[in-house]
Amino acid sequence: MNIQLLMTGNELMSGDIIDSNSSMIADHLQPLGITVTRKVTVGDSLNTLIDEIRSLSQSADLLLVNGGLGPTRDDLTAEALARATGTELVENAIALEHLTTWCEKRGAQLNQANLKQTLLPEGCEVIPNPRGTAVGFQMLLNNSLVVCTPGVPSELREMLRQTIIPALNDQADPAKASTRDRFHVFGIGESRLQQMITDQIPDWPDALELGFRAGAPTLEVKIQSKKQDAELREHYLEKLLAVFRDSITSSGNDSQAQALVSLLSERGKTLTTAESCTGGLIASMITSVAGASAVFEAGYVTYSNQQKTRMLGVSEQTLEQHGAVSEHTVREMAQGALKESGADYAIAVSGIAGPDGGSDEKPVGTVWLAWGDSSSIEAARLYLPYPRKLFQTMTAGAGLDLIRRKVLELSTHPDYLVERVHPSWKA
Amino acid sequence: MNIQLLMTGNELMSGDIIDSNSSMIADHLQPLGITVTRKVTVGDSLNTLIDEIRSLSQSADLLLVNGGLGPTRDDLTAEALARATGTELVENAIALEHLTTWCEKRGAQLNQANLKQTLLPEGCEVIPNPRGTAVGFQMLLNNSLVVCTPGVPSELREMLRQTIIPALNDQADPAKASTRDRFHVFGIGESRLQQMITDQIPDWPDALELGFRAGAPTLEVKIQSKKQDAELREHYLEKLLAVFRDSITSSGNDSQAQALVSLLSERGKTLTTAESCTGGLIASMITSVAGASAVFEAGYVTYSNQQKTRMLGVSEQTLEQHGAVSEHTVREMAQGALKESGADYAIAVSGIAGPDGGSDEKPVGTVWLAWGDSSSIEAARLYLPYPRKLFQTMTAGAGLDLIRRKVLELSTHPDYLVERVHPSWKA
Repeated sequence: MNIQLLMTGNELMSGDIIDSNSSMIADHLQPLGITVTRKVTVGDSLNTLIDEIRSLSQSADLLLVNGGLGPTRDDLTAEALARATGTELVENAIALEHLTTWCEKRGAQLNQANLKQTLLPEGCEVIPNPRGTAVGFQMLLNNSLVVCTPGVPSELREMLRQTIIPALNDQADPAKASTRDRFHVFGIGESRLQQMITDQIPDWPDALELGFRAGAPTLEVKIQSKKQDAELREHYLEKLLAVFRDSITSSGNDSQAQALVSLLSERGKTLTTAESCTGGLIASMITSVAGASAVFEAGYVTYSNQQKTRMLGVSEQTLEQHGAVSEHTVREMAQGALKESGADYAIAVSGIAGPDGGSDEKPVGTVWLAWGDSSSIEAARLYLPYPRKLFQTMTAGAGLDLIRRKVLELSTHPDYLVERVHPSWKA
Repeated sequence: MNIQLLMTGNELMSGDIIDSNSSMIADHLQPLGITVTRKVTVGDSLNTLIDEIRSLSQSADLLLVNGGLGPTRDDLTAEALARATGTELVENAIALEHLTTWCEKRGAQLNQANLKQTLLPEGCEVIPNPRGTAVGFQMLLNNSLVVCTPGVPSELREMLRQTIIPALNDQADPAKASTRDRFHVFGIGESRLQQMITDQIPDWPDALELGFRAGAPTLEVKIQSKKQDAELREHYLEKLLAVFRDSITSSGNDSQAQALVSLLSERGKTLTTAESCTGGLIASMITSVAGASAVFEAGYVTYSNQQKTRMLGVSEQTLEQHGAVSEHTVREMAQGALKESGADYAIAVSGIAGPDGGSDEKPVGTVWLAWGDSSSIEAARLYLPYPRKLFQTMTAGAGLDLIRRKVLELSTHPDYLVERVHPSWKA
């Protein structure tokens, strides 16, 4: 089945708003095994709309038009569909009744602007809108069913759920319905990841569609497969896990922080944070997870040297001799945080987020991390030459990952600690 | 000038991600008075891409293709452009040099997957990418300039700024160019704001296009006007400021936190944070701003009762009698943070982020805030019945706003402190 979308509205073209409706439509079609073939977005111009409806209806089985059903002058969808189909705009009895009832229930006056919403192409079929004044409508053109829907997301969602998706049920193709597996990986870039799969699983089958989405701090790996390929899927997922297991921070909808909170929670362990350059970001990622209070009691944001000493007991001599961004300092920060908080694990970070403050020896992007428990603390230096916020996000990701590795007793010297270093440090 | 966009990627069609790049492109074209005519989005299918490039190039003066430049198999843009233009993919010397230098600088190995990014259509012109491995490229087809750009937003942004937009400068239409003024407002909703403008500036002129974008924690107010309406713009902006001045947290591209850091910095003042329910979010918002170290030295994330006592000296008796989410507790948190940090101002928050932990008296969404300096601390209770992360974001926004009001000596009892309360508290 060929489904195409025509998204309308000047605000979509001008960059004023981001179109989230087409994602919503795709999400609703996905369980039916139906994918959208093509999506066209245009502004509020009558002639353009007429042209697009005519042209898209020639290749689409279903053309879903979104937006332009409102009461204002720039809402042109009904008129465009009438002109494209060679029909007239007439007052639609069902639309009028809906509007009258809607206004009565809310004690509102029917005004002229609203009445415009009852003028629909002659012969169209009305689609109820339980959430708003503008009904949807559909009619055939060039053997394509043209379905017009409102741009307000809550109204569109209800219309999809109640009418449009159920009507497509007999078009559903369960064989094409797909399963999606998702993993989040920290510390491996997209091209390296692709290369590793090519090298280590050279017979990766085409039936398992592999996709990547670069996020920060983690990279998402997606495997989409048809229901019928369940066996193949299981076999190759196992192979994939064998290659990446140690680098997978979480799977499905879970964020990296969520997975870490669950892990600590299961083991009855607690974590504390001592943050300089990330300024509270690691703590806030952890506490954004419901249930964080079981694993997190205290976080220290020590942005100045003085506060590193005062809050965490970092010695003044260490700061003087080695500087705030040094192995000695982050180790003492981690020790201090463990002692002050009584937590089982600590992560400490101190780095140069930029744009200023770098030197030849410690360029912007340098960060020292220390992590561990009361019996052993490890430390490492990374070079993350990104803009300030991304530097902070990647540093936080590294901190969460190193604690995960510690808790799971995996290697705490993952490749990224060797790779993401400044060239001059390699000497 | 007819500009069309071809956005590519299965993830755009499947609803996995929302396309924010086309908004970014529109935003960059807007000052030139150039609007995008049409935008087509398709998945990663070679034949579809070839067809769309051929077909769109017939009506567009400039066809901007976005996405599909990465190192993986589903990145097909270069091949599609070669096929559409009847050329071959060849190793491009400039692209190879860029990639080699990129990897050398970072001490990374060039791998086979990366090398794919150097295979470009023969005869194309390379567009530098200062932010990533994949260069852009352009060539003529059907009198249309086809410009291929990377999907990673930070890379696209740099390419637009450095190369693509400057090259369009002679196509700019200054008469159509518009000025956009932006303000960020905290504590007033979209419909209230619209109503206030209707009531208090009833003669607001059509020539000044007013728009709102609901964000969290602030609401963005935009006024778009043609260059020729400069006088009108000045006059009505003044009226608008008279209505909203106290609620405006920042203007232009500045975030709420950025504006607060600038304000404190100008006055030579420092701020500290004592956070329970926001778990470090306020500190991380402040320290995400470059130059935050001038105004921020210490932040305390006291997620448990014990740590409120240990880190900030909140009395055990207070916690026992009034609970962690109480006026007494947040006042003592703010006092403790001022004393420990030596900062000029403190903001303290304690609330119930949910989903669990609420009670009849203190439902999920309840938060107490205390803010002030060594001479006076104020406190207030808000009811913010949102999902966990949004609750944390809105609480952080309120904290930053109340400190701004304190520093500027504005009313520290804005309307939202009266309005955003639980119905039962009004008794």
